[in-house]
Amino acid sequence: MQGCVGVIDTTFSRVDMGAEAVRVLREELPGYRIQRWTVPGIKDLPGAAKRMLDSGCEAVITLGWVGRKEVDKLSYLAMSVGLIMVSLLTDRIVVDVTVHEDEAEDPRELKRIALERARDHARNLALMLSRGPGYLTRWAGQGLRQGYPNAGPLD
Amino acid sequence: MQGCVGVIDTTFSRVDMGAEAVRVLREELPGYRIQRWTVPGIKDLPGAAKRMLDSGCEAVITLGWVGRKEVDKLSYLAMSVGLIMVSLLTDRIVVDVTVHEDEAEDPRELKRIALERARDHARNLALMLSRGPGYLTRWAGQGLRQGYPNAGPLD
Amino acid sequence: MQGCVGVIDTTFSRVDMGAEAVRVLREELPGYRIQRWTVPGIKDLPGAAKRMLDSGCEAVITLGWVGRKEVDKLSYLAMSVGLIMVSLLTDRIVVDVTVHEDEAEDPRELKRIALERARDHARNLALMLSRGPGYLTRWAGQGLRQGYPNAGPLD
Amino acid sequence: MQGCVGVIDTTFSRVDMGAEAVRVLREELPGYRIQRWTVPGIKDLPGAAKRMLDSGCEAVITLGWVGRKEVDKLSYLAMSVGLIMVSLLTDRIVVDVTVHEDEAEDPRELKRIALERARDHARNLALMLSRGPGYLTRWAGQGLRQGYPNAGPLD
Amino acid sequence: MQGCVGVIDTTFSRVDMGAEAVRVLREELPGYRIQRWTVPGIKDLPGAAKRMLDSGCEAVITLGWVGRKEVDKLSYLAMSVGLIMVSLLTDRIVVDVTVHEDEAEDPRELKRIALERARDHARNLALMLSRGPGYLTRWAGQGLRQGYPNAGPLD
Repeated sequence: MQGCVGVIDTTFSRVDMGAEAVRVLREELPGYRIQRWTVPGIKDLPGAAKRMLDSGCEAVITLGWVGRKEVDKLSYLAMSVGLIMVSLLTDRIVVDVTVHEDEAEDPRELKRIALERARDHARNLALMLSRGPGYLTRWAGQGLRQGYPNAGPLD
Repeated sequence: MQGCVGVIDTTFSRVDMGAEAVRVLREELPGYRIQRWTVPGIKDLPGAAKRMLDSGCEAVITLGWVGRKEVDKLSYLAMSVGLIMVSLLTDRIVVDVTVHEDEAEDPRELKRIALERARDHARNLALMLSRGPGYLTRWAGQGLRQGYPNAGPLD
Repeated sequence: MQGCVGVIDTTFSRVDMGAEAVRVLREELPGYRIQRWTVPGIKDLPGAAKRMLDSGCEAVITLGWVGRKEVDKLSYLAMSVGLIMVSLLTDRIVVDVTVHEDEAEDPRELKRIALERARDHARNLALMLSRGPGYLTRWAGQGLRQGYPNAGPLD
Repeated sequence: MQGCVGVIDTTFSRVDMGAEAVRVLREELPGYRIQRWTVPGIKDLPGAAKRMLDSGCEAVITLGWVGRKEVDKLSYLAMSVGLIMVSLLTDRIVVDVTVHEDEAEDPRELKRIALERARDHARNLALMLSRGPGYLTRWAGQGLRQGYPNAGPLD
Repeated sequence: MQGCVGVIDTTFSRVDMGAEAVRVLREELPGYRIQRWTVPGIKDLPGAAKRMLDSGCEAVITLGWVGRKEVDKLSYLAMSVGLIMVSLLTDRIVVDVTVHEDEAEDPRELKRIALERARDHARNLALMLSRGPGYLTRWAGQGLRQGYPNAGPLD
């Protein structure tokens, strides 16, 4: 029986990060069925992630888009606490990808960040799932970034 | 036996968003009984949502109205964390609709936002419930907004 | 056997809101035993509420007094999350009443706000408990306030 | 068999509040064994409190010291939520005492505040435990403070 | 059978704090197997810590690196609440070490802080685990710091 990995994104997002994550996961995890759900906004992600994991998926990646207002940042905090609780309640990997609309003024740059971050974290998920939780240690402390150039290790 | 969907709003709200949500849900989900409860304010919503879901409803939509003060924003955060916890504890869909009193200075505009947001999210709930969690994927990344014009996808 | 409703307030508060809540509940819920506890401050309220509900009370009202400092607002947030968790863990009504010391400069006005808010929310609790969770719907969206004049519905 | 009450403080603290709490509890609760643990900082307090209560203590008092930086305030919030969760998960009394390093510029004054607050809250714990949860009601709404002069009730 | 202690760090970090913690733990806890995992960023730490403890480790130390932006501070808060929840759900010691990128402008100083803090807290973990939860009481109230000179006790 094939394993399942979930992708959940939002209609609020202005970039189709979910499609990007699905593409990478299909490439990197050919033995898995990739299941995709979409919810309205970031506060809907934890509940959907919990239901998807309970339906049998082994891991999930969520793709959130956060607005510019102060209240959006509070929603981001609630979502983050919720996704962490999902990982504690299910003991599964939950990769929480978020893009903040104020990360860039130029829409093309913002889109580039969003797509690259979705891809990079989908690869992270694939590596943790297929290679095990010690695999990323080769990059521990290396200042990796997703959507930006790596910051690199301090001298 | 008929399913049940819940609507919970507040007496604190200055717009009857609950009635609007009930109207849309009756239209969109003719096979369901629509149950409506009302609580004093936003911090009462998670507990009521939990009790309503435990009483047998399959999903719930809450309609909150958030004041202008800093402390209202903290109450918003507590409510948001609480509603997310409800979705994790019940594995049901909880659609959390909120209007912030500082979203518009003009009362008519604020009322319009509140009613439109209630309608739009009631439709979201109906679609997720009747069509399944993958249905909204057709609008993934499309920058949909509720109460405002859609932001649209980035080029 | 008589039901029980709990009232929990603090020694930190500068107004005896608990006595006011007890008086209203005795009037409005003659069939119930009203149990009163007092704790030092707002962060003690959730634990006491949980213990009181576990001891058999059907609902609880807490009366908190929040100081003027930034750290008091963080304590308010922690208390609010905690009281919501109590309602989720017990499936009982928890009415969380708080007065912020910076709501008024005039001590008499502040005292008036505190007492009126305690009374109004005690009545809310009595109505929800005795008439059921749909009773307040007659005031849904009516902009009710506790301790201030009602804001009223938007035109 | 003798009951047990726990005291947990930190090595981060600049005042030995734990010793002060132990002294008061020994005086006020002669029938109890007073158990003392120490952790590095405030974020370690909830876990230690939970383990101590699970090991059989009937109540616990934690003594935290919070730094001046914004991030210290966030740690304070996380600790506060955590200690409240401990009280909800164990149904025991958890008295959360904190001193903020920016409460006073004068080190002697800060030390005085810390010691007095530790003593006052240790007495609160002793009273709630030995006299029951209704005992403090005699001071409800009296504006009691710990480490500062009482604010007193509003006229 | 040998016990196990876990070390979890991130690829986001710009200093290899995990290696430093492993080195200290191997020295200080020769009877334990030291297991090391690495995750992308701080919000992944609580879930990994929970899974590692569920896999049989007796304690875990996490090493987080927090960026300079406001949203990074919110992620820090979510992580902190999450790690505290892990300690409450597992009743194990979870030592949460974090370095904030804005603690120092000079990269060498920042690296020194990170390594020293990792070492100091790894020693704290070893002491609490091998000597018991009362061992650190000899330094209670002594104003110990990790990565900075000790603040010392107030006179």
